Order: sequence, then structure tokens, then C-alpha cells
Amino acid sequence: MVQAINGGVTAPAGFLATGICAGIKKGSKKDMALVFSTVPAVSAGVFTTNVVKAAPVKWDKFVTEESAFAQAIVVNSGVANACTGESGYKNCMDMAAEVGAHLSIPASAVLVASTGVIGRPLPMDIIKDGIGKMSRCLGSTRDDGRLAAEAIMTTDTKSKEKAVQTVIDGKTVTVAGMCKGSGMIHPNMATMLCFVTTDAAISREMLQKALREDVVDTFNMISVDGDTSTNDSVLVLANGLAQNEEITGEGAAYDAFCEALHAVMVSLCRKIAGDGEGCTCLFEATVVGAATKEQARTLSKSIVCSNLTKAAIFGHDANWGRILCAMGYSGAEFDPEKVDLYFESSAGKLKIVENGMDTGYSEEKATEILSQETVRAIADIKMGTQTATAWGCDLTYEYVRINGDYRS
Amino acid sequence: MVQAINGGVTAPAGFLATGICAGIKKGSKKDMALVFSTVPAVSAGVFTTNVVKAAPVKWDKFVTEESAFAQAIVVNSGVANACTGESGYKNCMDMAAEVGAHLSIPASAVLVASTGVIGRPLPMDIIKDGIGKMSRCLGSTRDDGRLAAEAIMTTDTKSKEKAVQTVIDGKTVTVAGMCKGSGMIHPNMATMLCFVTTDAAISREMLQKALREDVVDTFNMISVDGDTSTNDSVLVLANGLAQNEEITGEGAAYDAFCEALHAVMVSLCRKIAGDGEGCTCLFEATVVGAATKEQARTLSKSIVCSNLTKAAIFGHDANWGRILCAMGYSGAEFDPEKVDLYFESSAGKLKIVENGMDTGYSEEKATEILSQETVRAIADIKMGTQTATAWGCDLTYEYVRINGDYRS
Repeated sequence: MVQAINGGVTAPAGFLATGICAGIKKGSKKDMALVFSTVPAVSAGVFTTNVVKAAPVKWDKFVTEESAFAQAIVVNSGVANACTGESGYKNCMDMAAEVGAHLSIPASAVLVASTGVIGRPLPMDIIKDGIGKMSRCLGSTRDDGRLAAEAIMTTDTKSKEKAVQTVIDGKTVTVAGMCKGSGMIHPNMATMLCFVTTDAAISREMLQKALREDVVDTFNMISVDGDTSTNDSVLVLANGLAQNEEITGEGAAYDAFCEALHAVMVSLCRKIAGDGEGCTCLFEATVVGAATKEQARTLSKSIVCSNLTKAAIFGHDANWGRILCAMGYSGAEFDPEKVDLYFESSAGKLKIVENGMDTGYSEEKATEILSQETVRAIADIKMGTQTATAWGCDLTYEYVRINGDYRS
Repeated sequence: MVQAINGGVTAPAGFLATGICAGIKKGSKKDMALVFSTVPAVSAGVFTTNVVKAAPVKWDKFVTEESAFAQAIVVNSGVANACTGESGYKNCMDMAAEVGAHLSIPASAVLVASTGVIGRPLPMDIIKDGIGKMSRCLGSTRDDGRLAAEAIMTTDTKSKEKAVQTVIDGKTVTVAGMCKGSGMIHPNMATMLCFVTTDAAISREMLQKALREDVVDTFNMISVDGDTSTNDSVLVLANGLAQNEEITGEGAAYDAFCEALHAVMVSLCRKIAGDGEGCTCLFEATVVGAATKEQARTLSKSIVCSNLTKAAIFGHDANWGRILCAMGYSGAEFDPEKVDLYFESSAGKLKIVENGMDTGYSEEKATEILSQETVRAIADIKMGTQTATAWGCDLTYEYVRINGDYRS
């Protein structure tokens, strides 16, 4: 039984965090965050598949794969530290070393993440100053998780947190996370940045397995604009303070942990898609009746990635031909003349297409359904029992404005 | 030696055409076109790979593969005749039969194409009326090719024609074409609709081969919005009136024909990309120094498909990180730290990136280069000698407006 609770990354036992305005961004926006586990934790990570990988992605791969334990995550927004060559990697290591010195832990226990403009060098003086400040005020307020979630935002309009609890071996285990992501969102592994903390006791192998398997149905199923970033990372720290018996293999305890992890990840995915750059709504596409899970994923993701469909959703226009078209070019096989299609939202559910043809539905009702904050398309392809959901958003004038003028 | 000449599909000997306002669209816009060869011609076609295929695509596959000869192409805009089931296919056959009856040719010699809204039935009374009118006025004006090119437009802002001549066996051979396409443009085989006419004498096999090989580097390399349409078709009619010795195999004559065909196809592709829905510029991406042609194609197409890059081009913002990012997630392997990147237009050429890092270029000069009507990005990946070019356009407010409200 997974139960939602208030809070973010500091909800699990033993985690502190903070977020500050270090001065990387113009104005007085927060731009650095630090998450710290008071005891050593095991870590796991999944990262962008983009050939162009930002320096922190390379560093974090090393930490999650090679380091004995991890205990901190330092994050900056404003500059992505991607396409910055050797000096970029050195800056990344210097960030880890600086955090390690302040918190008395090895540099190899510090995960690093950056997000922002590609190609610019990190302003290291400002960053080192910021690390000093954060180390001193870690956990000094009750809003610490929230401050961190705010500090990692770029074009996000809302901070994104989630925390849940479950019971494993009679012990309460908490899993929590925060993430950011608004544009350049089409993860092939993970989205821009997501950080999950838990007090569960779990081996590194099982933590990595749980994460790797969950992203397939969560972060790999969201898209804002089809652009897979250079910095995508999902990092998890598990510090064992919940005192459940360490999870070292499959079974009921592992399943309970995965269920809690999934609840956090899905919630964060929906928050990212619903806060896509310039968007006015969260657009979910669910494919049911698929022969295989993979087919359902391919079809649902193709729907939320279609620019034409997204523009129609923005216009509250039930232009269903674009959805069938997007399914058709997805690469998955199906019979278009067997497809049923529904639109659903808080305003109701309407059958738009039956066996590939118009049902003669009410355009007025369809527009009402499509005018809500969360809009869902459901396609039944009548080939089997598998299902998958993908998350996206509408395509708006505001998306173009934000991205026509990002660096100014 | 391929030489451009004025005119469109009626430039080759023996071709007549016309375009009229039949009344399918609201207002007084032209919406039907007819192309007719006064003598039987061989035909070839390439079609959408979308699983959802419009009725005319299925019919034209039959005609180009099975029919002894072809002699006419009838086109309507306004309604796509896609997702219309069995009655849609019957309507398509009825269109061919109606044209055949008026022009005294078999229905199986008539190619049919439709473009417009998906899911609506064709208004057959209006269409049959239109076919009668067009049959009577075929070739009655000197602007006949132009009228046809105008009648196949949907959201296109300009009609698109091209004609060239070459010499084969001492005979002047003319190759010409017209096309339409503005949104739902990401052909995987061909774009929305393109019709090529030629008076070359060439076997059906060699015509199909020439066409199939040419689209790989032309229509399959353009993208307006990443959406592969249900109706994409490129059709060619070759009627032999140039009286060159029939081309039945490879050699100098075949090469000369391919060169002329390619000149027409590239020109039409650039016209489609440069008239992408709502766009303000033609955006070309050329990759040089690739190890294989396929790698160059994959990388260049990924650049012109990136929403973020396209929005930056709209903003005249030299945000080169987005171009490297798009190359990175394309699926092609390369070393990001060896890439040089240039921007080029009528305002000059500027090196933006050297070995994966910023050159410290002038932002002012870059903005000037990016403010022209045709803008080119050139990426040198230093792995070999292969090159490819892809064509796209910028992403604008107007694209969103057109597609948020297409059916109203």
C-alpha cells in the first residue's frame, strides 16, 4: 500500500537539502541546490543516450558505477556544462571536491548535475561560493526540500516534488523525489534532472534494477518537444535508515519498493509533461488492446510527440485524423480500420472514432472535453491486452516565444 | 547538362493540364487539378510508409504496379480521403472511372490523389462535376500547368513548379514537376503530393528505379513538422515523345535522365521546405566529412527536425548547443569533440564551433546571417568524405495558429 505524504527529497529519514541564489542566473532566482544524506547511501542512475553527454553525466556514471557509496548531490541551473570539453569535466570534479571538503566526505561520494545553456563554461568562483553557503545552511529551515526543488528550475513554472510511504518488513519506508524539466524534454533514459531519495535498505544492484526498469514506463514515456537533452539524469540515493531488512533480491519487499518508486516517478513525469514549455495542458495518450507492451508504448509515445496533434489540442480541436496519422507512422503495426478512439477529461468521455471511422460525435462536446487542464486520448487497437500511457502537452505560441529567444 | 526552363507539368511534349474551383473548399479557391498525357505513358510512384494509408495511395500503388500504362492524374484538395474505409476506396475508383469516361481511357490508366482533412468523405457530386469541367477545358489556356499547381495547394502560400531540359541521344528531353506540401511534412518515401511529367522514353522499371533512388536524397530529406502524412505520393509519367532511344538499363542516357529528375526533385523539395506552414525561412542542414552517406543523412535530418533548433532559427539565435544536441540523439555515432559548425546565408559564413566548442564568434554577425530567407547550418564531423543535405524551416507562432485551428 503506497500512500502519498507531503514533502520532497527530505521526507525520508536522514536527508537534508537546501536551495539558494548563488548568482549564476540573472536577477534573484535560485540556481543551486544541495541534497545530503547524513549517512552513506547506495546510489543508482540512468542517463541520457544522447551521444553528446554533458560533463556531469560522465562524472555521475563513474560515481554510480564505481564509487563505494554516495552521500550528496550538488546541482546548478543556468549553465548545462555540456559541450565544454576537458575543462568542463575538470570543473565538474572540482564541484564534487568542494562539496566533499565542506561536508567531510570523499569527492567520489558527490553526484553533480547541471542544467541550462549548452556551451558556456561554469562560473566556478560563484559556484564554489554557493557550495560554501549551502553547506552552512543545510537543513536550517523546514522548507529545505522545497528550496532545492525550486533551485533546479529553468523554464519550469512550478517546482516538482513527490513523496510516498509504504511498509516493508513492518518498517515504514519513505520514497521521495524532485525533478525539473520543461523544454528539451524527450528523454531516452531519463528526463533532464530527477533526484529520488529513500530511506529504504536496498542493495545497489537491486536499486539500479528497480530504477532501470521503472524509467521505461515513466521518464521514457514523456515528451515535450522531441529533443533528447545532453544532461538527462535520474539519480537515486537509498540510505537504509528505515531499517527494513536490506533488499538484495526479488520478492515481496522488492515489489513493495518498486511500487513506491513507481508512484513517485509517475507523479513527477506527469508534473514535467503538464509543465512543458509554454503549454496549457497535460496531454496523456493511453493505448489499450495492444498485442505487446512495446507496441503500446511506441503508439502512445508517437501520439504525444506529434506537433500537429499537439497544436490541435492547444486549439481544443478534435482533429482525430492527426492521432491516427501519428499512430500510423510510429513504426508499430496495427489495423487502422479496427481502431476505436476516445477523448476523456474531467468534462467527460466521448467516442470519436469507431473501427477507424468518425462516429459522428458532437464537436461541441469534444471541444469542452479538450478544454480542461488534463486531456486524455485513449486508442483501442483490439489486438490483445497490453496497455501503455505516454505524457506530453500541447504546442503553443508560448513554446515558440520561449525558444526563439532562450538565451537573451 | 541540365538546364532550367520556365513552366511546369505541361512543359514536356504531349502533356495538358488544368486546375479549377470545383467547390470542395469554402470560398473561391481552386481545389481540383487534372494532368493528361495525349499518348499512353509509363508511370512510377513512391508512397507514404504510414500504416494509415489514404484510399488514393492504395489505388495508385495498383496502377503504377499493375496497369499496362497510365495517362492521367486527377487531384483534389480540401479532403484527404484518408480513414474513410471501403466507401473511400470506392469513391477513389469512381473518380478514376469518371476521368476515364471523359477522356476515353481505361480507369486503370488514371492516377488519383487527394489532400486535405482526414476522416471526411469526398463530396462525389461536386467532384464528378469538376472532372467534367476539367475534361472540357484541358489545355485551353497557356497557363494550364500553373493552374494545376495552384489547385493542389492546401495551406501552401505559393504554388510549386519546376521544369528542366537535358539532351539524351541528341534529343531534347524535358522533365517537369509540381508539388504541394506545407504541414504534416516529414515524408518517409515522398511528401504529400508531387507529380513529375517527362517526355523521355524510358522503361517502367528504370523509371521506378530512378524515382526510388532519388527520393532518398530529396523528399525523404525534408521535414516541416515531423509528421509523416497518410497521403504522401510522388508520381511520374513518362510518355516518350522526346523520341530518345528508350532507356532500358543503366548507362549515360539513364544517368542524364536521373540528373534531370534530381534537379526537378531538389528544386521542389526546397520549395516545400521554404513554404513550411507558418515559416519565415528555408533552413538547410548539410553534414560533411561523414563516414557514410547514411550517417550524413541521419545527422542532417535530425538537425532540421529539432523543434528547439527550429525555434532558435525563428529567433535568429545562434543557439548552436541545440544543433549538437540534435545530432547527438539522432542515433548516428560521431565524436562531438571533433565537430566544426558553420552558419551560412546570403549575409556570409561564420564558424561557430570548432572541435565541439564555442569559437567566440560575433553574436551580431551570427544574427545577421540567421535573418535571411535561406539559412544553412554546415557540420563537419571529420570522419570521411560523405555528405548529405536536409531541408526544413523555422518553427513559428504562425505554425501553431494554423494548426490549432485547421478545420474551422
